[in-house]
Amino acid sequence: MASPSHPFDPLTPKEISQTAKIVRRAIPESNPIFRFITLKEPPKHEMIPFLDQEHRGQPPDARPVRTARVQVVIQDAKLSPNKLVELLVNIDDEKVLHQEHLVGKHSYIDPEYMKSVEKACLADSRVQEEIKKLDLPAGASVIVEPWAYATDGVNDMSERTTMCWFYIRLTDNPDANYYAYPLDLCAEVAEHLIVTKVYQLPSAAHDRIHDDSRPYDRRKIHPTDASEYHPSLRPAPRTSTKPYQVLQPEGPSFITQGNLLMWEKWSMRVGFNHREGLTLHDIRYDGRSLFYRLSLAEMFVPYGDPRAPYPRKGAFDLGNDGAGINANNLRLGCDCLGHIKYFDGWHNTASGEALKLPNVVCCHEQDDGILWKHTNFRTQNAVVTRSRILVLQTIITVSNYEYIFAFHFGQDASIHYEVRATGILSTAPINLDDTVPYGTIVAPGTLAPYHQHLFSLRIDPALDGHANSLQVEESVPLPVGDPDIHNPFGVGYTTTSQILQHEQGLDLDFAKNRVFKIINEASRNPITHSPVGFKLLPCYSQMLLAHPSSYHAKRSEFTTHAVWVTRYHDDELFPAGRHTMQSAGGEGIASAIQQRSAERASVRNEDIVVWHTFGSTHNPRIEDWPVMPCEKMVVGLKPVNFFTGNPGLDVAVSTQERNRSVLVGCGGGDEGADGGACHLL
Amino acid sequence: MASPSHPFDPLTPKEISQTAKIVRRAIPESNPIFRFITLKEPPKHEMIPFLDQEHRGQPPDARPVRTARVQVVIQDAKLSPNKLVELLVNIDDEKVLHQEHLVGKHSYIDPEYMKSVEKACLADSRVQEEIKKLDLPAGASVIVEPWAYATDGVNDMSERTTMCWFYIRLTDNPDANYYAYPLDLCAEVAEHLIVTKVYQLPSAAHDRIHDDSRPYDRRKIHPTDASEYHPSLRPAPRTSTKPYQVLQPEGPSFITQGNLLMWEKWSMRVGFNHREGLTLHDIRYDGRSLFYRLSLAEMFVPYGDPRAPYPRKGAFDLGNDGAGINANNLRLGCDCLGHIKYFDGWHNTASGEALKLPNVVCCHEQDDGILWKHTNFRTQNAVVTRSRILVLQTIITVSNYEYIFAFHFGQDASIHYEVRATGILSTAPINLDDTVPYGTIVAPGTLAPYHQHLFSLRIDPALDGHANSLQVEESVPLPVGDPDIHNPFGVGYTTTSQILQHEQGLDLDFAKNRVFKIINEASRNPITHSPVGFKLLPCYSQMLLAHPSSYHAKRSEFTTHAVWVTRYHDDELFPAGRHTMQSAGGEGIASAIQQRSAERASVRNEDIVVWHTFGSTHNPRIEDWPVMPCEKMVVGLKPVNFFTGNPGLDVAVSTQERNRSVLVGCGGGDEGADGGACHLL
Repeated sequence: MASPSHPFDPLTPKEISQTAKIVRRAIPESNPIFRFITLKEPPKHEMIPFLDQEHRGQPPDARPVRTARVQVVIQDAKLSPNKLVELLVNIDDEKVLHQEHLVGKHSYIDPEYMKSVEKACLADSRVQEEIKKLDLPAGASVIVEPWAYATDGVNDMSERTTMCWFYIRLTDNPDANYYAYPLDLCAEVAEHLIVTKVYQLPSAAHDRIHDDSRPYDRRKIHPTDASEYHPSLRPAPRTSTKPYQVLQPEGPSFITQGNLLMWEKWSMRVGFNHREGLTLHDIRYDGRSLFYRLSLAEMFVPYGDPRAPYPRKGAFDLGNDGAGINANNLRLGCDCLGHIKYFDGWHNTASGEALKLPNVVCCHEQDDGILWKHTNFRTQNAVVTRSRILVLQTIITVSNYEYIFAFHFGQDASIHYEVRATGILSTAPINLDDTVPYGTIVAPGTLAPYHQHLFSLRIDPALDGHANSLQVEESVPLPVGDPDIHNPFGVGYTTTSQILQHEQGLDLDFAKNRVFKIINEASRNPITHSPVGFKLLPCYSQMLLAHPSSYHAKRSEFTTHAVWVTRYHDDELFPAGRHTMQSAGGEGIASAIQQRSAERASVRNEDIVVWHTFGSTHNPRIEDWPVMPCEKMVVGLKPVNFFTGNPGLDVAVSTQERNRSVLVGCGGGDEGADGGACHLL
Repeated sequence: MASPSHPFDPLTPKEISQTAKIVRRAIPESNPIFRFITLKEPPKHEMIPFLDQEHRGQPPDARPVRTARVQVVIQDAKLSPNKLVELLVNIDDEKVLHQEHLVGKHSYIDPEYMKSVEKACLADSRVQEEIKKLDLPAGASVIVEPWAYATDGVNDMSERTTMCWFYIRLTDNPDANYYAYPLDLCAEVAEHLIVTKVYQLPSAAHDRIHDDSRPYDRRKIHPTDASEYHPSLRPAPRTSTKPYQVLQPEGPSFITQGNLLMWEKWSMRVGFNHREGLTLHDIRYDGRSLFYRLSLAEMFVPYGDPRAPYPRKGAFDLGNDGAGINANNLRLGCDCLGHIKYFDGWHNTASGEALKLPNVVCCHEQDDGILWKHTNFRTQNAVVTRSRILVLQTIITVSNYEYIFAFHFGQDASIHYEVRATGILSTAPINLDDTVPYGTIVAPGTLAPYHQHLFSLRIDPALDGHANSLQVEESVPLPVGDPDIHNPFGVGYTTTSQILQHEQGLDLDFAKNRVFKIINEASRNPITHSPVGFKLLPCYSQMLLAHPSSYHAKRSEFTTHAVWVTRYHDDELFPAGRHTMQSAGGEGIASAIQQRSAERASVRNEDIVVWHTFGSTHNPRIEDWPVMPCEKMVVGLKPVNFFTGNPGLDVAVSTQERNRSVLVGCGGGDEGADGGACHLL
């Protein structure tokens, strides 16, 4: 079997099916359901010499073994619950290296199983009885939206439970927005597809008397196009927006060789897996090593409605759902503009065959306004360059919501990670004319509960090598009146800084201009004499609101601090733990640090990882309905005394010859209406 | 004289020269130097009925009088200092309405005077002697960079003083970057162009022994292209960036009628004046009133180096310099891309003639990625719309620095105000191999001192009318264990909010998700039942670091709080006071509030103004040298329950037919290099 071109390359289709064969051979007694067959990235201690030799243009002394991480479910009538097994497979030697029964753990959400849950739920006699009572209009149907049970400590966690929320689709158009018509019905479905509970959802604030008349479901529900987003259900769109196209007459400025991507002075390797989706590896600028790996590591969406069963709404959209397997098939001309390269991803079927996930990552350039400009006021000579950025984008759909994740690379050696939240709000029923203090009424009878989106960006730095440190700098006024400090006019300020010694979580403080810098203390800038570094431009965000004693908090340890620094460990990729589904806590980043606290693992001049928690407290606006205009969150990484000057200084000056802009006369797009008369300011 | 088309229109060239005539007639004994002749915007109580009738399509009952605000300097040998006079002129009736001698005030910086200062300084015998000592290489010359004296309380403030900093231009290329070669020489020049002081700048930390050998100036200074930004002094630029053009086959989507700008559902009037530069008036979306006026109101750049005379470095780039008169003449294809409309501005000459400031504002559209997207996971039907934004941009050069100011209007009724800081760092000399704790060494012998950029965005809201309020909302966990509060699982959270009663300054707190909402309590959303509003998306920034007792602090009162709310007053436009030049303090927003504190002016359901202070603590990186890649700061205004749904819901779905993107094959821009082989992920 031919070697794939690079150890960071995801498993090839051939490797996936080959791995499945090896696994089936190893556990012949069963008929395993393959949940994932994915690359186990090589240990870093093997990759460091490999990459060093690669970048020196030398053949590698050793090529890391191609290894797969595999998760299978073994179903057996005698077994309850199903047996979840994880294996490590040496693909080169066709050997199972390790096999572990994950007792008490649950695999990520299985869409096929969820469809069975929907069916079972709708077939249940109690559910059918409830639906009958609704006396639905012609063309309407009930939609069951199953959510993986996020434990609140009430049910047994060893069994898979599914929460079923009910909605009405009021027309026979399959793209009608059923989230606009939530029912106050709820069902719980056990592992073996048995409906264990059918009950009424709260539809008023808890302290109000329970309304037995159930006015919500009995009220006449009228469809309204104000709650629809699909063009087939909407009036004709606005026609004022004229076409806008991007022309790249010489093609894009990037080059790809397999998964190796080169653009301007950047190089990196594009990776992809079922859980994290897009990952980036061995990121360099002008040949210098910057980051070993960048990835979105987790996200958690806890809902803030305290009324049972809503405390079970808490989605881990990576750990439970998978940013890879839920990645959209991106479409030319819709999700990006200009010259676009798409990358496909590969997953596997339940039987272990390779499954193509087409166009899951798109790569294109954007104009980003001005990169730098200066006008010499003595000569009036202006020099201006435009900023071109490279965008690597992936979009996921997780039931109602969409997330757009994009890395932006700049010519000034900056990296920005942008998250856009869009899609449809998760909704719940509410009595007409009622309100609750933890949600917004977005349509009559429809509540959009308060919730948070909390992301973790994992930054594995390799600034001029792998021994890095994290420095915390603040800007502080010089004291006034201290005879030892020269500050006669009271205007002086300076910076104080501290290099962190041990693993910990830290908070942001813009009032102190607190800056987190990843530095290499052994690599000094020849001009500034300070260690070379990159600083984090954080996204200032409220951390988790749920109480520390809650399951929301126990399961999402990364959500309590904005910045975490840990010692690097192979496979320590997930700050809420590897198994978030039904997690009872204790598996996240804080626990890992706590477990290592006896060693007091140094993070100074060591191989470290920095994790940034950010997001939004999303108390919906009605403007987020029926589909949300993107809410943007941006995190940045910028060089600080890493180079010896502006890395974009050599970008060519902007000219009209190349840019071909068009002068608009007076009257703008409608010259005639203005009669050509130009009313000057 | 024909009426200009609208009361918000800046003075026309004819009105400017007409006003000058009226002023000259009123003060015939003197030969006034005209500093500005600008529109005094009509009182709001006159504009409200005017705008109401205008938007109802009715002829106005009354047209506000065209009024000019004029500032003149009257030079007289017997007068010292020069007499500064401000006048209000009724242009329609050709009458001076008001005339005031501004005793003790200074007008904004006069570039012509500054040139005389340079000349006088270089002609001074002591300065010439110092320059002689430098033994400059052939082709080199000394450049004097005059800075308006920012009082530190040492000099008499009634006289104009100018600080002269010295640099070497090491080649005869006039665009060579002399900021790279600061001298340790300093001179002070008095009003009547007399050099009053010549002295040596500190070139080591204050606590180090003074170095009489002056190694900086005696050392051989070698020119280095690492310190140059002008293409004529740089090696050939990178050639990897391929052309990127914007094609708008049907032209732009905006329409202008004079200064009235209409785009998508937005309408607004574009204004411009010498001080604020770009201003926006009567901003509406879909016919509904949102903001009466939006403007950058002030900016302050205090330096943090405590050593005399550096505490005098504190620039008010609007109040002292003027964002209007320093606005760049924008060039097609350089400062923007696509179909661009330029607006000219008008200022006046010293003798009162109209002076055209060409292309000071550009207006164009940009693609801004995805506006909203949803994929129905049941049907796999994706609906995606692209976000188009309208950009109104102006760029100013203030000596070494550049600022790019841009309003971005969105199809979702959001407004973003983006500031990009670029240009060249202000520099000071430092001994070779020395360091100081309040600056970064960006080149041998060249210190870039720490400083702050603090901006004030003035937001004059008119949400569904002029009686608005400011609400402060926070997201707070529900308590656990309180028998009166239902929160059994500890996950509940809610919002608390307070409507401000009185004028005050307030701080940001992202940890509480503190949100500032401008609301109209009398206008309720029919669905959410809450008051309609717009929220501020602040730029989280450190406030002023200088001590409250310092002149920096006294002169820039707006820099102590991130958000200020005041009652509206005509002409209260500048949060550091109308006269920032040599201001001794007491004229800013805090003083105004203090002076009105006896009245306890209500700001609830009143005509209010909200001011947002933001910026950056800029401790330079060497990557900011020799010209800074743009540092972006963004502030947003977004509707919150103002509309009854997503305002961009009617934007047409994206299609490849309209967008015409191009698929890039394997190998990207260099198909051949990869042999066409596509290595799939």
